[in-house]
Amino acid sequence: MDYQAILDEIYEEAKAFKGQGELATYIPELARVDPLKFGIHLTTAAGDEFCVGDSEERFSIQSISKVMSLAQVLPILGDALWERVGVEPSGNPFNSIVQLEYENGIPRNPFLNAGALVMADILISRFDDPRQVFLDFVRKLAGNPSIEYDLDVAASEGATGYVNASLINMMKSYGNIINEVDKVLEFYYHQCAIAMSCKDLSHAFMIFANEGCVFNADERILSKSKVKRINALMQTCGFYDEAGEFSFRVGLPGKSGVGGGIVAVHPMGFSVAVWSPKLNKKGNSVLGMKTLELLTTKTGTSIF
Amino acid sequence: MDYQAILDEIYEEAKAFKGQGELATYIPELARVDPLKFGIHLTTAAGDEFCVGDSEERFSIQSISKVMSLAQVLPILGDALWERVGVEPSGNPFNSIVQLEYENGIPRNPFLNAGALVMADILISRFDDPRQVFLDFVRKLAGNPSIEYDLDVAASEGATGYVNASLINMMKSYGNIINEVDKVLEFYYHQCAIAMSCKDLSHAFMIFANEGCVFNADERILSKSKVKRINALMQTCGFYDEAGEFSFRVGLPGKSGVGGGIVAVHPMGFSVAVWSPKLNKKGNSVLGMKTLELLTTKTGTSIF
Amino acid sequence: MDYQAILDEIYEEAKAFKGQGELATYIPELARVDPLKFGIHLTTAAGDEFCVGDSEERFSIQSISKVMSLAQVLPILGDALWERVGVEPSGNPFNSIVQLEYENGIPRNPFLNAGALVMADILISRFDDPRQVFLDFVRKLAGNPSIEYDLDVAASEGATGYVNASLINMMKSYGNIINEVDKVLEFYYHQCAIAMSCKDLSHAFMIFANEGCVFNADERILSKSKVKRINALMQTCGFYDEAGEFSFRVGLPGKSGVGGGIVAVHPMGFSVAVWSPKLNKKGNSVLGMKTLELLTTKTGTSIF
Amino acid sequence: MDYQAILDEIYEEAKAFKGQGELATYIPELARVDPLKFGIHLTTAAGDEFCVGDSEERFSIQSISKVMSLAQVLPILGDALWERVGVEPSGNPFNSIVQLEYENGIPRNPFLNAGALVMADILISRFDDPRQVFLDFVRKLAGNPSIEYDLDVAASEGATGYVNASLINMMKSYGNIINEVDKVLEFYYHQCAIAMSCKDLSHAFMIFANEGCVFNADERILSKSKVKRINALMQTCGFYDEAGEFSFRVGLPGKSGVGGGIVAVHPMGFSVAVWSPKLNKKGNSVLGMKTLELLTTKTGTSIF
Repeated sequence: MDYQAILDEIYEEAKAFKGQGELATYIPELARVDPLKFGIHLTTAAGDEFCVGDSEERFSIQSISKVMSLAQVLPILGDALWERVGVEPSGNPFNSIVQLEYENGIPRNPFLNAGALVMADILISRFDDPRQVFLDFVRKLAGNPSIEYDLDVAASEGATGYVNASLINMMKSYGNIINEVDKVLEFYYHQCAIAMSCKDLSHAFMIFANEGCVFNADERILSKSKVKRINALMQTCGFYDEAGEFSFRVGLPGKSGVGGGIVAVHPMGFSVAVWSPKLNKKGNSVLGMKTLELLTTKTGTSIF
Repeated sequence: MDYQAILDEIYEEAKAFKGQGELATYIPELARVDPLKFGIHLTTAAGDEFCVGDSEERFSIQSISKVMSLAQVLPILGDALWERVGVEPSGNPFNSIVQLEYENGIPRNPFLNAGALVMADILISRFDDPRQVFLDFVRKLAGNPSIEYDLDVAASEGATGYVNASLINMMKSYGNIINEVDKVLEFYYHQCAIAMSCKDLSHAFMIFANEGCVFNADERILSKSKVKRINALMQTCGFYDEAGEFSFRVGLPGKSGVGGGIVAVHPMGFSVAVWSPKLNKKGNSVLGMKTLELLTTKTGTSIF
Repeated sequence: MDYQAILDEIYEEAKAFKGQGELATYIPELARVDPLKFGIHLTTAAGDEFCVGDSEERFSIQSISKVMSLAQVLPILGDALWERVGVEPSGNPFNSIVQLEYENGIPRNPFLNAGALVMADILISRFDDPRQVFLDFVRKLAGNPSIEYDLDVAASEGATGYVNASLINMMKSYGNIINEVDKVLEFYYHQCAIAMSCKDLSHAFMIFANEGCVFNADERILSKSKVKRINALMQTCGFYDEAGEFSFRVGLPGKSGVGGGIVAVHPMGFSVAVWSPKLNKKGNSVLGMKTLELLTTKTGTSIF
Repeated sequence: MDYQAILDEIYEEAKAFKGQGELATYIPELARVDPLKFGIHLTTAAGDEFCVGDSEERFSIQSISKVMSLAQVLPILGDALWERVGVEPSGNPFNSIVQLEYENGIPRNPFLNAGALVMADILISRFDDPRQVFLDFVRKLAGNPSIEYDLDVAASEGATGYVNASLINMMKSYGNIINEVDKVLEFYYHQCAIAMSCKDLSHAFMIFANEGCVFNADERILSKSKVKRINALMQTCGFYDEAGEFSFRVGLPGKSGVGGGIVAVHPMGFSVAVWSPKLNKKGNSVLGMKTLELLTTKTGTSIF
């Protein structure tokens, strides 16, 4: 398939929608980004790479980091992880804390903020320097040792993260957070503030498109079964309250972030990352959604 | 792949779990079924068929009927359907009426009882004899004109369906039910009470495994795009509050019913139906879940 | 105290607010009432009576009937009533069915629609002709044998009562309704559709201002203790989601109805009924609330 | 009325229930209290005083402090207070944070923890040394300059107060907390940790039984209207999810705390405080509830 021609075509078509959407504003630092940035990078299982636009510029990956956090935590805890976090969609626009209170402090899935906070708590319990350990893991997945935390974004999020503080204290009251809440929050804000490019993300997510094997390395770090579970979770829970919509329009497992990035994988096929900062009302990148919809339509690569 | 050998093997392995689970009791008539019944039927895109156990005995398909209802309604209304019913998972053990009230009478998805009642209402508005029209549609999908409603089951469900009556009246108060509630309920109870065998269901669901083409017929009645949407909905919403678990363990779009049936499809691969009446606590067949998990593990056919 | 002078004064002052509020429209028949009607009737424990305006014109008492229903049911069942209905405020703008589902079909208090439906169910179980028995009870409390059901209002409410049908079916599914739902609904709609004047209501509620003794009769039909419980319930639950506001502004136990009536009692002091059909957003009569606020301010008769 | 004889009689009768209930354990320091302590103090509007048992021993007043906080805040802000906190019962066993999220960070009433945190925030905004200012106010109401904070209890509560931290961060995210959350929490924990005796509390609450006049002083610090509002709030919201039950059994405005204290007032009659540490399942003192029920039954002083 001529992926380069298809990406070029999509890039032009998607730009027609560039007037739509709004920058995320609840993290002040994110509101400074150029709203017209737009890049795509696709890596195939065969090792070919295709890109267009601002695909090498780094941005704040935000919630996309939760998938990599899960990929690091799951082999450590195994199925014991599922005693502290569920695997079902939250399906609740009022979600967050309401369900947490009804369900005794167990988050519905690892891609909710509450679920990601539990995973951050696990990494803190396990490692002396979790921030370095997580960064090393991300660098290894992406095959790029120059990836860094954006400390301004982390500080900006920390200064306004009252909802996250509310969530983690509620879980702490139920005993589902072991470490001090401030320590967990600080690590979590750093994790979300990693800066990566579409190219980096496309490489990093090859692990989910390639049965657990790290991109361009001779190493498997996730079993096929764990990859299957993580892909299934991305499919059902990867897009906040728009997972059903994404499943229909795109039909691939994926994960979005409020920085405007989306990554999706076609198992045994490819890993694709797209970035455009303006978000729809559900918090997902407008051009990102459009790009991936066009991609699976033009290539017929939906898993459904 | 030697599907027959695999089905035989699975049949033996799954039987080890036959002590687990309970019959559905809230519909009195369903409690009369022999709890040890167990059958499987698999049809491939190439037209080959494989079966084992009680695969030709008919049982009450219950919620599995909702997928066929959607397949009939969606081409009639097109995207206008999504103004009356959503496409997102409900993710709520207390789901049903709580979300209905918060979300102004719009059910979260077509596979909730509330969503299926809306589709029933649509068919009643459209056809003079919706009961016959729906039965004809199911017979056509399955290629079997002898399929019938089980009137005892329909009557049994009607006599105890207070939760459904509560749901439909709530939707009626928001204007999302056009016809008289008793008329809609009566049609809905018949729809759920269709009796089909694993063989019938496997044939009928080939439409979702074969890009909209009816089994053994030279007719396409759903566009590829509509099939993709329905499969995506089965993946995210097909198993009550266990959709995430099913996505992980099985990794195929599917739909279960409290009669103990489950159907799953591998797009462009196969359609498989399994029946065993004893249910787990989430309302899904114990042996059915086990069978499909073994099937995708042994054949490597998970879509993830 | 010169109650007549005070009522005359209040009548003039309150009329300044007659432009505010809206007629109830969800029961079509109620929307036909002259919105400018306004009457007050006050009866003292000493037997004196005072009135002003349209105090002898009958209107639909609606939810005010729930207090008389409770006065009839409580001596029959005694404390066993509280196993089927609670005594706490619902405090929930989303109240109704959400709490019913979380609390297993037990309504929070007898003045919610759900609670009144349970009481209606009890009267149906107890009496062969509950409609006549209840009407006789109301006539006796008011000392007026000419009181009747308004059959047009009852029919109008029955034709649009989908929320009530939703509530009662939910309770039925939990086993908290014994009789057929249609039978209970029909009785309930008649109960709400009783037509009474301010004079009638003021007389009838003397039972709560006079330790259980029927107005102008030598008969006690409620113990002091039961009167205390009913008054406490009116104080905490008598005004939908505005009970706290009413307690503050008026400071008397009372009950409102969407027909625009409000009755309040000063234990051992007086019983006062006011009627003006235009309602505020919480469903309580605008002039009614104003009248009672002025009354307790001018007379210093708040119980607080 | 011979209050002393009545108190002596009640003291003996209530002791029969001393085996019931449990100490509050969620604040570790409170679990150290002698569970058999039991005292009562009653002050009449005429200035007479009656007591029995451990009525001069100090205990942790906890939520009773919220009424005094309201008495201090209300004259400062006037009705502007009601823009930041409601006046309606919460009526929700799952109350706290669920309603906060649905209602945009505005607590239902000032006697919920969330409501008291808003009042604490107001005092911090107003005064340089709110802790001293509040203590001075309490001392003045009680006419006792020796009242102090129990710093061990304040520290104990601060170390385990994750639910309060969750609540206040949620309100902060909605902009309904102005100051730093840690600062507000610290002041709040001190406020709750004031140690007072039944005698102190009975004196302090005379302000609500005596139209706003401070006990034994020639000073009115609340208008009649404000006293009426606060008494109405105690009536409808003073006993967590047992306000309706208390209204029925006791029939007086009152407020309880998890330290085992309850204070109730009979407007223009008396103020009575009772203390016994063992709590029922709703968090109210078992002997305290029994004592007040016997008191209003024997004296006929229910306001209903």
